[in-house]
Amino acid sequence: MLFQLPSVERLVEAFRRLPGVGKRSAERFALHLLSAPERDALELGEAILEARRRVKRCGICQNLAETDPCVICADEKRDRSTLCVVERPGGVIALESSGVYRGLYHVLHGVISPLDGVGPEDLRIDQLINRIGAENIREVILATNATVEGENTALYITRLLEPLKVTVTRIAHGVPMGGGLEYADSVTLARALQGRNRV
Amino acid sequence: MLFQLPSVERLVEAFRRLPGVGKRSAERFALHLLSAPERDALELGEAILEARRRVKRCGICQNLAETDPCVICADEKRDRSTLCVVERPGGVIALESSGVYRGLYHVLHGVISPLDGVGPEDLRIDQLINRIGAENIREVILATNATVEGENTALYITRLLEPLKVTVTRIAHGVPMGGGLEYADSVTLARALQGRNRV
Repeated sequence: MLFQLPSVERLVEAFRRLPGVGKRSAERFALHLLSAPERDALELGEAILEARRRVKRCGICQNLAETDPCVICADEKRDRSTLCVVERPGGVIALESSGVYRGLYHVLHGVISPLDGVGPEDLRIDQLINRIGAENIREVILATNATVEGENTALYITRLLEPLKVTVTRIAHGVPMGGGLEYADSVTLARALQGRNRV
Repeated sequence: MLFQLPSVERLVEAFRRLPGVGKRSAERFALHLLSAPERDALELGEAILEARRRVKRCGICQNLAETDPCVICADEKRDRSTLCVVERPGGVIALESSGVYRGLYHVLHGVISPLDGVGPEDLRIDQLINRIGAENIREVILATNATVEGENTALYITRLLEPLKVTVTRIAHGVPMGGGLEYADSVTLARALQGRNRV
């Protein structure tokens, strides 16, 4: 209740829909924008509208892009025989920031989750299968999250790819680097033991 | 570095200017808006522009308002002899939410802070003095924050008001209700002792 200022209440409600933003933070953001120099506030409002207008999905990897194909798909210097499958654009950002991967990507835009009413047909799996046939992919790395839904989605894709001549791998899960055994949960520990390698 | 998507980078930068929002949160907000239904994203962008367009300052109390005078200043049922001085619109929201105050407000829009280059002339202090003369105010409650700047601002206003026929009070500071002595810092404890009342 911000004193019968309908436009401010609308703004607070809109901010609350951002991930991890509660009533307090939303009010703080709104008050900040109303007290900040007008340019700052207009800049955010216009940046949202403009980004939404300009950013589309790459027709090949389905990642967010301003061009089609996107910068990564169009980059001839990347390893075009390896494809890394991630759930969301955030996964691509994380892997690109780490700088350890030089292949191509495919973004599913979600995971199979029957409880949320999301089936394989809601994801970009068809496009993935088409790519394997059309491009010269030799390895598909499944990098969906280590959640029940992520694991099931990886399993589903693995089965779909079985008839195709392509190596399918899953990224390793285990104790994070720098993390001690005493801080890892039991599921992670079980996974770390199962996935042990000969030294 | 979000893959040479200038519109997304601009959006992340704009989000980072919100209070308490770092690089990670800003990226999360931006990716959320680009994946969310288009309506949600446009709603936030337009809500910002619209709030900024509609919200002005009340010519009397200087609080954020869509009307002039604002809803509080125009409310004939409020106690028009008491004026509570706060630093920012957020202070009015906090006091109104508590429901314990029925008087009028005056918003300074800042505090005197020489280190930040903010002097009395940058605040709405002139308008405060004018109100004391023009309206029938009997008590001015100084509710600036319990910081060095807030205390100094309260002191400055107290001196300005001395020649005028008005009672000036300061809100009490001390151990918060429900808080034990062991959790209060030493400055708060000193203040709680200084401000002790006969029971």
